[in-house]
Amino acid sequence: MADIRNFRAGSAWQADGWAQDATFGIDAGGRFAAAGERGETIGRWVLPGMPNLHSHAFQRAMAGLAERRGEPSIAPAPGHEDPKTAIPGRAPQDSFWSWRETMYAFASAIGPDELKAIAAQLYVEMLKAGYTQVCEFHYLHHRPDGTPYAPAETMSLALVEAAREAGIALTLLPVLYMSGGFDGRPLSARQRRFGHAVDAYLRLLETLRAHEGDGLRTGVALHSLRAVPGAALREVLAAAPARDCPIHIHIAEQVGEVQDCLATRGARPVEWLLDHAAVDARWCLVHATHLTADETARLARSGAVAGLCPVTEANLGDGLFPLADYLDAGGTLGIGSDSHISVSPVEELRWLEYGQRLATRHRNVAARHPGDSVGETLWRAALRGGAQASGLPVGELRPGARADLLVLDDESPLLAARDERSVLDSFLFAGNTPLVRHVMRGGQWVVRDFRHRDEARIAARYRQAVATLARS
Amino acid sequence: MADIRNFRAGSAWQADGWAQDATFGIDAGGRFAAAGERGETIGRWVLPGMPNLHSHAFQRAMAGLAERRGEPSIAPAPGHEDPKTAIPGRAPQDSFWSWRETMYAFASAIGPDELKAIAAQLYVEMLKAGYTQVCEFHYLHHRPDGTPYAPAETMSLALVEAAREAGIALTLLPVLYMSGGFDGRPLSARQRRFGHAVDAYLRLLETLRAHEGDGLRTGVALHSLRAVPGAALREVLAAAPARDCPIHIHIAEQVGEVQDCLATRGARPVEWLLDHAAVDARWCLVHATHLTADETARLARSGAVAGLCPVTEANLGDGLFPLADYLDAGGTLGIGSDSHISVSPVEELRWLEYGQRLATRHRNVAARHPGDSVGETLWRAALRGGAQASGLPVGELRPGARADLLVLDDESPLLAARDERSVLDSFLFAGNTPLVRHVMRGGQWVVRDFRHRDEARIAARYRQAVATLARS
Repeated sequence: MADIRNFRAGSAWQADGWAQDATFGIDAGGRFAAAGERGETIGRWVLPGMPNLHSHAFQRAMAGLAERRGEPSIAPAPGHEDPKTAIPGRAPQDSFWSWRETMYAFASAIGPDELKAIAAQLYVEMLKAGYTQVCEFHYLHHRPDGTPYAPAETMSLALVEAAREAGIALTLLPVLYMSGGFDGRPLSARQRRFGHAVDAYLRLLETLRAHEGDGLRTGVALHSLRAVPGAALREVLAAAPARDCPIHIHIAEQVGEVQDCLATRGARPVEWLLDHAAVDARWCLVHATHLTADETARLARSGAVAGLCPVTEANLGDGLFPLADYLDAGGTLGIGSDSHISVSPVEELRWLEYGQRLATRHRNVAARHPGDSVGETLWRAALRGGAQASGLPVGELRPGARADLLVLDDESPLLAARDERSVLDSFLFAGNTPLVRHVMRGGQWVVRDFRHRDEARIAARYRQAVATLARS
Repeated sequence: MADIRNFRAGSAWQADGWAQDATFGIDAGGRFAAAGERGETIGRWVLPGMPNLHSHAFQRAMAGLAERRGEPSIAPAPGHEDPKTAIPGRAPQDSFWSWRETMYAFASAIGPDELKAIAAQLYVEMLKAGYTQVCEFHYLHHRPDGTPYAPAETMSLALVEAAREAGIALTLLPVLYMSGGFDGRPLSARQRRFGHAVDAYLRLLETLRAHEGDGLRTGVALHSLRAVPGAALREVLAAAPARDCPIHIHIAEQVGEVQDCLATRGARPVEWLLDHAAVDARWCLVHATHLTADETARLARSGAVAGLCPVTEANLGDGLFPLADYLDAGGTLGIGSDSHISVSPVEELRWLEYGQRLATRHRNVAARHPGDSVGETLWRAALRGGAQASGLPVGELRPGARADLLVLDDESPLLAARDERSVLDSFLFAGNTPLVRHVMRGGQWVVRDFRHRDEARIAARYRQAVATLARS
């Protein structure tokens, strides 16, 4: 047992609550192991690192660039104005669809060097915020004119390198993106760099699987029902790579998408997917915002993860997920920072709960039973669903799981006089300053005293990359 | 002009936008003055400090202690369950009213030493977050058994001392609190320490006015229509102190309150107040959440400030303010951190906007005209309304205004490659780490490089105070 390092924590968060005076070992492979004798004390409050189940890394660099009301020229594309929410007699207002135009324009300037610089900065920020695993829903595959890079996986590998530099673990989900709408229309000029035929997509997936190993897992991503025709969906799901890996899909984020799906396929998106695919625990349905009661219950029963991105969903005006009903039905959920307008599991979970309070005018909605803590309920749920969506044994402080952990800053006045009953609620709901002091990923310290091990170099390169983008 | 210190900023935020390469002087009294020659460069992005128009300081120490679902024993008091939102067939859920029971129990242990320790810590956190002025809506006047302290203003002076130690400016609003409901019922045992007869209240006000001066302004606070009978309201408003100072009132925060007001006074709270008092620019209507279209338009026309506390209103499940209609009607608004579950103008303004996006499923709601920035619109509005509610010349970088300013951290990757068009949107919407690097209040630096000038001592005393409270 010479290669087991031993650690000790005042209290360590387990699936069933806090364990006091906890000891644990970490083996040479970066996994938790049975504890030997007592080792170094690492802090008073120790939590598993949080998986981030949905990321479009390049969007980090445009955080704050789309909060200015658009000129009419970037109003929603015809057919995408949401009739339920359009305001009669007023100029068209910004929406998800006008934001998407801004995002496409921004994406068009990003090549592999920029992507690596942006993603590495983002991943440093994720680690500092408490995310130790990221699922990258990656569709920026080709050159801006749509021709492949050589090799074709160049952009994917930029993400792999960025994750390695930052020290975050990556579930890389290359995205299949084939059409511009439910009617099967071809990709627009700005969407061409996202596109693949099914065979080329499956080749990309195989190529990337060969890179799997410490810190890299791959999976399948279907962009959405509007971008993947039914036949292609069946073909990809039948192929070997999809049978033993995570499968992610954007779904039911926008009312316009639900209406288009009803009009072209005679069913709502989640309803259609549950009817036409064997949705199970491999799946992560990202957003799943607009659900009927029946869809909510069926999704919960399927064992799939609802991939919630509350801050992005607020920023984009998507709407609110039916949290209470989904939890009551035993549904699994996790969180993602998606567009990276914000990078914080605290803000995601806090406002997941607060959105529900504003809608229901009650408090403590996620706490379904008397005595339950909202903070504990949500942190526990997001660890479990995030690990499942990542396809990896993470999110738990138990032997065999990857040694990802966070040490909270017990010197912060925000945690003064907090005990096991209140510390997670204070972590998630009190104040606005980061409370994650140290972060270990795969047995290695990547953040100590709020500083990432390589943050100055990565930030300098990021600054240079975005300065170049701003001039382009 | 020997006593004018001169400063220079890359860009300084003025009421009509950014002024490049700005210079300004600060006189010996801590006010902005005409600039002399060029002086010290203080940063690239300089903003006026933000007034915080609503604070109950003692509640800071309970942040995170009420996010656990209550046992049925702390269910809403009879008559306070909201029939519109109660869920048939389910156990009663936590609400504003059950939260209030927790808060009353917490308040009962707080004396002047605890109040000073908690408030000083809170005010340090406010300054670090960018608030340079606070309106303290103070109702914790007496001993827990309801008897006055000697002198009667002891608790008020604890707040004055806390503000002086921290270096924040204070608008102290002692609260008139007389009855436990619209029906005129007496105060409950837990409310007794809040109560005054009108004559005792006016004496307290006069005593506190004698302390006014640098860093202290006083005003009138009426707790709410349910706690202040109509005759008492008229009597206080007719007295000299109320004729030249800010007048604040809690109003229309909860649906239950609107219903009780309708039942007992035949009008909704804001409607009743506008009908029975000369509401004008001296007034701050705190929350004003539940408004009809007519109340929204009348409140906007009155010139009063709507005192919005979006994070507390989300935490308490209050509801959403009709922001777009109010702005279109030319209404004035400001922000407050109220219960201090969060202390950040960024989170208040971000989620003021995001709440609207979730409700309307559109983006950039506060930006009422094409080309408007949401960040600029909201920061500008909150400066103006906050200054008005504070009763002081603050919130502007112009000669004669108090020299309160913030310098943003232009080394942060969140502001990399941001220009005048995008920096305020990035400040308010991007990321989760504090971007306020230096803070000046009344011409003095109180925060430099993210550190308050006295934060270690104040935090240590706070920790001791809350440890004592936790044992009590």
